[in-house]
Amino acid sequence: MKYCPTCGSTVILQTPEDDTRERHVCSGCKTIHYENPRNVVGTIPVWQDKVLLCKRAIHPRLGYWTLPAGFLEIGESTEDGAKRETLEEAGASVEIGPLFSLLNVTHVEQVHLFYLAKLIEPNYQAGVESLEVELFSEKDIPWNELAFPTVRKTLEWYFQDKKLGRLNETDKIVTHLDDVGYDERIDRKH
Amino acid sequence: MKYCPTCGSTVILQTPEDDTRERHVCSGCKTIHYENPRNVVGTIPVWQDKVLLCKRAIHPRLGYWTLPAGFLEIGESTEDGAKRETLEEAGASVEIGPLFSLLNVTHVEQVHLFYLAKLIEPNYQAGVESLEVELFSEKDIPWNELAFPTVRKTLEWYFQDKKLGRLNETDKIVTHLDDVGYDERIDRKH
Ligand SMILES: [Zn+2]
Ligand SMILES: [Zn+2]
Repeated sequence: MKYCPTCGSTVILQTPEDDTRERHVCSGCKTIHYENPRNVVGTIPVWQDKVLLCKRAIHPRLGYWTLPAGFLEIGESTEDGAKRETLEEAGASVEIGPLFSLLNVTHVEQVHLFYLAKLIEPNYQAGVESLEVELFSEKDIPWNELAFPTVRKTLEWYFQDKKLGRLNETDKIVTHLDDVGYDERIDRKH
Repeated sequence: MKYCPTCGSTVILQTPEDDTRERHVCSGCKTIHYENPRNVVGTIPVWQDKVLLCKRAIHPRLGYWTLPAGFLEIGESTEDGAKRETLEEAGASVEIGPLFSLLNVTHVEQVHLFYLAKLIEPNYQAGVESLEVELFSEKDIPWNELAFPTVRKTLEWYFQDKKLGRLNETDKIVTHLDDVGYDERIDRKH
């Protein structure tokens, strides 16, 4: 940030009184402009014993597979955002279940949240941000072609919990929590 | 937003190609400036059968009691943010436990996340944003003087779960999920 979004004056990096961090402070109107991490919300869309994945049509990680997910928008809840992204990217209508994973990805200033979700019908189609959309059983998941570590971890937890019978009672599902470091990122081919 | 934070030109509200929402788009450098909800992270700091609350020294809700919580900062995880806020507002060092509640407060563009936490020692003191900090047992919680509905709901869930023995096994704690509407806000006296 170089200019104040409110008045157009230049901003200065300084630590406001009673604050402990440097902020962008406007040299004109004195507004303090805070910057915060953003939420990426998505689903694990399930149909019978399969999970719906999308092959990305956009950068980063174009051509790699992901769970449907995207930035939470102003005015929507995390559940509604996850549902919208599933419809936009995978053309699939889902019923949202419990929060399944929360992963901090601090090096890209993001928090990733994935909800368990049930496909209402086995209908889906690639949206503009997807090249393909497909239902995968565990043995067919393209583990080496997943787009993001948060997706890989969430899928691993999902199939593990399923095996252990931990997904049978919807009101007893425990949210998985983890942080993903810079060194855990999946190497980019693109 | 009226001016581009990157180049200082005026911004125009328009829907970019392949997007479904109006964004602030720069008339000069064409950058699309996205706005997203922010995370407020906090703890339920527990010592024996008591919970630590802070009386707010700042607006909004000055003079009302809250769980320690504040905006998640760039570069920190939700757990680290919750821990930092507990230290800043309540002068208390905590060990962070599982995610206990996630509440969407869409009308103020926030997501509130509260973690269970254990005080490491029964030491605490009001930070600059607090007038007082105090340990309360359930019967003494100032229910009519709580600052925010997300705090009230989280405390209600906490004492309910405690009574039901649901907090005994740390690895089986189920995260409470809810949305708080505009009509559920606690009326302001200030
Ligand atoms: Zn300004
Ligand atoms: Zn610009």
